[in-house]
Amino acid sequence: MSRPVPSRWTVGLVQYAPAFGRKAENLAAVEALLRDVRADLVVLPELFATGYLFRDAAEALELAEPVPDGLTCRTLQDWSRRWDMAIVAGIAERAPDGIYNSAVLVDARTDTLEIYRKIHLFNEEKVWFRPGNLGFRVFSVRGVQVGVMVCFDWIFPEACRTLALKGAQVVAHPANLVLPYCQRAMPIRSLENRVFCVTANRTGADVREDGRRLAFTGQSIVTAPDASVLLALGPDEVRAAVVEVDPRMALDKQVTTRNHVLRDRRPEYYRMS
Amino acid sequence: MSRPVPSRWTVGLVQYAPAFGRKAENLAAVEALLRDVRADLVVLPELFATGYLFRDAAEALELAEPVPDGLTCRTLQDWSRRWDMAIVAGIAERAPDGIYNSAVLVDARTDTLEIYRKIHLFNEEKVWFRPGNLGFRVFSVRGVQVGVMVCFDWIFPEACRTLALKGAQVVAHPANLVLPYCQRAMPIRSLENRVFCVTANRTGADVREDGRRLAFTGQSIVTAPDASVLLALGPDEVRAAVVEVDPRMALDKQVTTRNHVLRDRRPEYYRMS
Repeated sequence: MSRPVPSRWTVGLVQYAPAFGRKAENLAAVEALLRDVRADLVVLPELFATGYLFRDAAEALELAEPVPDGLTCRTLQDWSRRWDMAIVAGIAERAPDGIYNSAVLVDARTDTLEIYRKIHLFNEEKVWFRPGNLGFRVFSVRGVQVGVMVCFDWIFPEACRTLALKGAQVVAHPANLVLPYCQRAMPIRSLENRVFCVTANRTGADVREDGRRLAFTGQSIVTAPDASVLLALGPDEVRAAVVEVDPRMALDKQVTTRNHVLRDRRPEYYRMS
Repeated sequence: MSRPVPSRWTVGLVQYAPAFGRKAENLAAVEALLRDVRADLVVLPELFATGYLFRDAAEALELAEPVPDGLTCRTLQDWSRRWDMAIVAGIAERAPDGIYNSAVLVDARTDTLEIYRKIHLFNEEKVWFRPGNLGFRVFSVRGVQVGVMVCFDWIFPEACRTLALKGAQVVAHPANLVLPYCQRAMPIRSLENRVFCVTANRTGADVREDGRRLAFTGQSIVTAPDASVLLALGPDEVRAAVVEVDPRMALDKQVTTRNHVLRDRRPEYYRMS
């Protein structure tokens, strides 16, 4: 480690209701919410600029963008530069081999641009996207190790565990949650790995011309290594929020003087498949 | 599979406050609580006959018993025969190579006696016991696959996951919980694996002559594959309780028509150490 872990670090998130397919309008809405917050890292929802409920793979392709050369990624970089904050945001990524439900990490301060491609696709996402193929990734952001997972990854304890084993102190978790469970699970994910988790969920509903409708649960949440809830938004709130954390807490994996949540693991007895 | 999974099955648990070291008194207390319940499977707390707060390894050795030839195991077999129920119960096991914090499964109907030795030891248990060396085990009990874990195993998601991957439908979980987290985690353990979990916790406190004191949190809980709580006792309640479950629910691992909580796993991206 080249420098000490900061003892004060700020994480933020944006909860809002994207208008399906109206990217310019969505980017303007998020920009307005971000304008008054300052944080080391801000997390935006999954697919924050496009909305979620695609008609089919062709429509997902149409709305997807290359990274970093698309409008959405360029805008994130611009915000990062203007407000000197790192940002993790969900994006429909148009890659040469197909479309991924991805999250990008941008930090203009270090000219950082990294990609995580969602590994566990939820429901119709299996029609719209290719499954992630870059693994679970942890990045150094302003002195803190930040892991990334997206939405449904939460239900697989292996996702957050893998990030913790790779050294994550803060897990950035863009989401478009429709089931009511994740917000109950995140304190447990934090506790069992002794990490901070930042779940930025969207609110509102996508309503399409063909009558399909999908509502999202809001209740974005920031959880700490002791299972406490540092920040919790309401189901319908539209706002950005910031909380201060001490990332050094996430380096202490002891739950008792004799129990370390990672070193006490006994993989020789764990079944993988 | 030789016969169909039953659609109605009853699981019970006993929550009570053992008197430290007073085995005969404790066995009588549990017998009185069991007398009026009938169930396919009843789960008793961890170390239910001895109490928990040993002075040292020598005292643990003194109170431990061979399996199946000790008083506690013989008594469990007697209860199983008398009331025609399978029982999973925590016991200090005196084995030729040392003392284990074990759980036994007895079922007189099939002359079953199986042992699980706690794999993740909590705090001072590391002084009193040897770490479990038999792996996570799943047993067929009256048509249902029953996995066993003990207390602190809960904090390692790999424990319940391994049992689910080995086919467990019901996880029997004797406990002596002192931290306040497990009861919040068990609905998530049930959900992420789509299994029933039966956490039989003790209540009361062990108070020793040297002034050491340890209090237990009660709140024994039975959780279902949809994260619902089927049964929840209070922190200080002393009683046996039974609930009916449909074990076929635990064979359905779909959380959406396209998502199977076990087959959607992508172990190629999971880190084990």
